[in-house]
Amino acid sequence: MATRSWWGWGTVENAVRGDERDRLTARVAALLPGADLTVHEPPALPSLDLPAPVVAPPPSLARLCSSSVEDRAAHGHGKAFRDVVRNLHGSLASVPDVIARPRTEQDVIDLLDWCSSDIAVIPYGGGSSVVGGIEPRFDGPAVTVDLGHLAAVSEVDSVSRAARIQAGVLGPALEDQLRPHGLTLRHFPQSFEFSSLGGWLATRAGGHYATLYTHIDDLVESLRVVTPSGVAESRRLPGSGAGPSPDRLFLGSEGTLGIITEAWLRVQERPRWRARASVEFASYADGVTAARVIAQAGLYPANCRLLDPAEAFINAGASASVLVLGFESADHPVASTMDRALELCRDHGGVVQSSDEASSAWRSSFLRMPYQRDALAQQSMIVETFETACTWDRFASLHSGVVAAATAAIKEVAGAGVVTCRFTHVYPDGPAPYFGVYAAGRWGSTVAQWDEIKAAVSEAIVAAGGTITHHHAVGRDHRPWYDRQRPDVFAAALRGAKSALDPTGILNPGVLLDP
Amino acid sequence: MATRSWWGWGTVENAVRGDERDRLTARVAALLPGADLTVHEPPALPSLDLPAPVVAPPPSLARLCSSSVEDRAAHGHGKAFRDVVRNLHGSLASVPDVIARPRTEQDVIDLLDWCSSDIAVIPYGGGSSVVGGIEPRFDGPAVTVDLGHLAAVSEVDSVSRAARIQAGVLGPALEDQLRPHGLTLRHFPQSFEFSSLGGWLATRAGGHYATLYTHIDDLVESLRVVTPSGVAESRRLPGSGAGPSPDRLFLGSEGTLGIITEAWLRVQERPRWRARASVEFASYADGVTAARVIAQAGLYPANCRLLDPAEAFINAGASASVLVLGFESADHPVASTMDRALELCRDHGGVVQSSDEASSAWRSSFLRMPYQRDALAQQSMIVETFETACTWDRFASLHSGVVAAATAAIKEVAGAGVVTCRFTHVYPDGPAPYFGVYAAGRWGSTVAQWDEIKAAVSEAIVAAGGTITHHHAVGRDHRPWYDRQRPDVFAAALRGAKSALDPTGILNPGVLLDP
Repeated sequence: MATRSWWGWGTVENAVRGDERDRLTARVAALLPGADLTVHEPPALPSLDLPAPVVAPPPSLARLCSSSVEDRAAHGHGKAFRDVVRNLHGSLASVPDVIARPRTEQDVIDLLDWCSSDIAVIPYGGGSSVVGGIEPRFDGPAVTVDLGHLAAVSEVDSVSRAARIQAGVLGPALEDQLRPHGLTLRHFPQSFEFSSLGGWLATRAGGHYATLYTHIDDLVESLRVVTPSGVAESRRLPGSGAGPSPDRLFLGSEGTLGIITEAWLRVQERPRWRARASVEFASYADGVTAARVIAQAGLYPANCRLLDPAEAFINAGASASVLVLGFESADHPVASTMDRALELCRDHGGVVQSSDEASSAWRSSFLRMPYQRDALAQQSMIVETFETACTWDRFASLHSGVVAAATAAIKEVAGAGVVTCRFTHVYPDGPAPYFGVYAAGRWGSTVAQWDEIKAAVSEAIVAAGGTITHHHAVGRDHRPWYDRQRPDVFAAALRGAKSALDPTGILNPGVLLDP
Repeated sequence: MATRSWWGWGTVENAVRGDERDRLTARVAALLPGADLTVHEPPALPSLDLPAPVVAPPPSLARLCSSSVEDRAAHGHGKAFRDVVRNLHGSLASVPDVIARPRTEQDVIDLLDWCSSDIAVIPYGGGSSVVGGIEPRFDGPAVTVDLGHLAAVSEVDSVSRAARIQAGVLGPALEDQLRPHGLTLRHFPQSFEFSSLGGWLATRAGGHYATLYTHIDDLVESLRVVTPSGVAESRRLPGSGAGPSPDRLFLGSEGTLGIITEAWLRVQERPRWRARASVEFASYADGVTAARVIAQAGLYPANCRLLDPAEAFINAGASASVLVLGFESADHPVASTMDRALELCRDHGGVVQSSDEASSAWRSSFLRMPYQRDALAQQSMIVETFETACTWDRFASLHSGVVAAATAAIKEVAGAGVVTCRFTHVYPDGPAPYFGVYAAGRWGSTVAQWDEIKAAVSEAIVAAGGTITHHHAVGRDHRPWYDRQRPDVFAAALRGAKSALDPTGILNPGVLLDP
C-alpha cells in the first residue's frame, strides 16, 4: 500500500531518489552550472506549527471529520511549485480547520447545512490544484470536503456508452471499474493518478486527446450537484438546445456554485488500432505550420504535441523541434490517416523519424515530471509550468512575447534559466501552448522568485490575446488576469447566479469571484 | 428581387402553386382520402385589424423605426404551423408596437436605453422561430429589434480559419461573403435561407453536420452581446478553461439576457471530396442499430439520417427504412471511410442501394418542405414537426411512446393521420429524432387540433427521458415541458444571472423564464 506524500506529488514510494536523483542533478548541473543543488528535506509533520482549529463539527457529523495535523497539512495547499516549496518550508499559514469525508450524498448535504451560515466550504477531489483552488486563503473558519469516499462507477450503459460515476474517484480507480465492461473514459490529464473526476469537471480539465474531445466538458452527459439551495440534476442527453446548458454553468465553477457529487460520462471502447510517429523540424515555425495544417485537416489525431527545441532537448533527447503524432481507433485501422498527417508534415519541411524514440522518451519523462519537479524544488530550483491557448494568427507573437517576458524575469530574479514550450492540444483555430521554466533559485526565496516570473508571463499572455488558462483553472492564483480577461457583464451574471445558489457565500470564497 | 411572405415561409415567388400544388394535393388525397383540401387564401394586409400601437419611438430613434401594418404583421408570429395558420385567419392579437432596424451596434444600445424602464424588447433575426420565440405574448408595449441591417462579414482570419460576422446576416448572404476567401461556415439548418446567425446563436441551432459539430455552439470562438447592463465581449479563443464559459451562457439564452450583435465563428475550407450512399433496412430496429454503431465508430459522417418507413415513403419514395449517409472532406478522400460505414450497415442487415436516388429525392423534398407545409396548411391539413434527443438505451421506448401518443392524439382530434420519424443528428450516446405529423384537420380548428397533439407528444417525450428540444429552442411554446426538464436550481441561477443583466426584465419576457 503506497503512502500519499503530504507535502509533494503522489506517493512517498515513487519520489525521486538514488540513481534517478543523481542523473537529474547531473543534467541540471550541466544546464545551469554553478547552481547550489543541496537537497532540502521536508519538515517532520509533528514539527509543523499549525494554527489551532477555530471550528469543530457537531456531534452528528463528527464521524466524518478530522482535524489531525496530517490531514490539515495535506489539505492546505494544492500541488503547484509554490505549494510544494511552502510545504518544504513548513509555511502553512492557511489550512482548513476540519477535513470532512462524506460517505454519501446525504452527508454532503448535511455538511453544507452545518456550514450554511458562516463556515467556508472547500470542495476537494484529488488535491492536485496548481492554482490555489483548494487553499483557504481567507479569514474565518474553513471546512474542506474531501470526496474521496464517493468513488464508485455506479452504473454502466453499454448501449449508449455512458457511465454514472461518483465525483471523488481518482483516475486509475475509475478506469479499473470500467475495464471489465471493455470501456474506458480515456481522459488522461498529467495529474491522472492523483486527480478526481469531480476535480476534472469543476476545473474543465484537459485530457488525453490533442484534438476533438480535449476538455472533460465534451464527455459530460449530465451532472448532479449539491448546492446550498438544493440538488441540481440535469437529464442524460446526448445533445440539447433547451436554453443555456445547465451543465456548462457548473463545468469550470471550481467549487463556487456547488459540490459535484456524480456525473454521467461518455465512455468508449478501448482502442484496438494505434499509430505513432515523431517528426523533426529544423524550423520551429515550420513545425507550428504543420501542426496547424493537421489540426485543420479533419484528421483528429489523438496526440499532436509539438515540442520546441528546448522542450525536445530536455524531455525527449532530440536536437530540433519534434512533432509527436498519434492516432487511435476502436473501430478501424489508422495507418492511412497517419500517412496523410505525415504527408502534411513533409509538405512543411518535416523529417519523419525512423523510430518514434523521441516520442517514447517524451512519454516516460511526462509521467515522472511532477516527481522530478518536487526533487528539483528540494534543490532550490525554480521549476514550474504555465499554459494558455490562442488563435493561430496570434501564436507567433504570443510565443515570442511570453518567452521574452519569461527570459527577462528569470534574468532579473535568478540570472540564467530555460524556457520551453510544447503544444498540449491543437484546435482548427489555434493551439494550446504549455510552457516550462527551469532556473536556479535561492533557498528560501524560490516562491517569491517564481511569483515574479509568473506575473510577468501572465501579463504577456493576457496582453497577447491568450487565455490565462486552457486547462489548469483559475483558482486564487490566476484571479488578477482572469478578472481582466472575463467580460465584466459575464462577471455580473456569474455573481447573480452564485447569489441565487449560495446566498451566504460559503462556497470556496475568493475563487473566480471576490467573497 | 424576391418578396418575403408576411404570413408564410420564405418568398412569395417560391410558394407552392400550379403543378406542384396539384401533385401535392393528389398525394395527400391518396394518403388521407376524404380530406377537404379546399385552398384558403391569406387575408389582404389592409384588411387586418391590428391593435393600435401603444408606444412610439423618441424622435432620435424614429429613423430606425416603423409601425406599418405590414411590418407589425410580419414580425408578430414566427413560422411554426400554428403561426402560419393564425396568419391565414388574420388572428394577430399580439403584434409588436414598433419594429426597429438598427444600423449600428450603437443603435442597439440606444434602443435598449429607450426601452430600459418598461418597454419589452424582442430580438429578431430571420423571424423563423417555430416556438413562439418572437411573439409578444404578454401585456404592455413591445419593440421588436430586427437586426437585418447588421449583415456584414467584417473580418476574415484565413490563418486561424475564423471570421467576425454580424448577427443579422441570413445564411445565403453569410456564405456569399465567405466564398471569395475559399471558406464556408457550413452551418445549414433547414431554415438556412431565412434565419440569421444571431438567431442560430441565441437558439443553439442545429446545422449541417449529423455528427461532431452539430450545434452552432461548437463553431463559436467568441461573442459580442449588448445587454441593459453593458456590452459583453469574450476573447477569441480556440479553447479555454477559465471559469464557466461566458459564451455558453449566452448561447441558448433566446434573447432573454442580451442582444448578440456579432460573433467570431470557426469557418473551414470548402469540401473537395464527397461520398454519398443510401442503405435500406427491412427492419427499422436494425437501421437504428446501424446508425448507433456508425455514430460510435469515430467515422464522423456529415450526414447520417435514418428515415423510418413512413418518412422514407413520403419524402424519399422508398418502401423501407433508409439510412442516408454522407462523408466530406476538404483535405483527403473519404471513400475508405464510406466503405467502413457501409460495412457496418451490412453487418446489421442493411442493403446498400446501387444509386443514392432515395437520398437525392429526400434532399430535394427537404428544401421544399416548409413551402409545402404552408400549402397544406392552406388546405386545412395539420402538418408540423417536433424533435428531441435521448440516449440510445431509451430510444426504442421513446420512439414507440411518442408514436403511440401522436397516433392516439391524432385519432382523437382528427381521425386519421401519419407520424414519421427521421434522425437529424446522431451522437455516440444517442440520436436526435425528428418527427413529422400529417393529418386532415377542420378549417378554423387546426391550431387547436395541433396544440392537443403537441401537448400529447411533448408529455411523451419528457416522460421518456428526452429533451423538449434538440435544436428548435424553447421560446414560449415549450415552456411547460422545459420547466419540468430544467433543474430548479439551474432555473434559480438563470434568474439570478438575468436579474443582474436585465434588472427591469425587458428582454423577451416569458421566454425561458416567467416575466
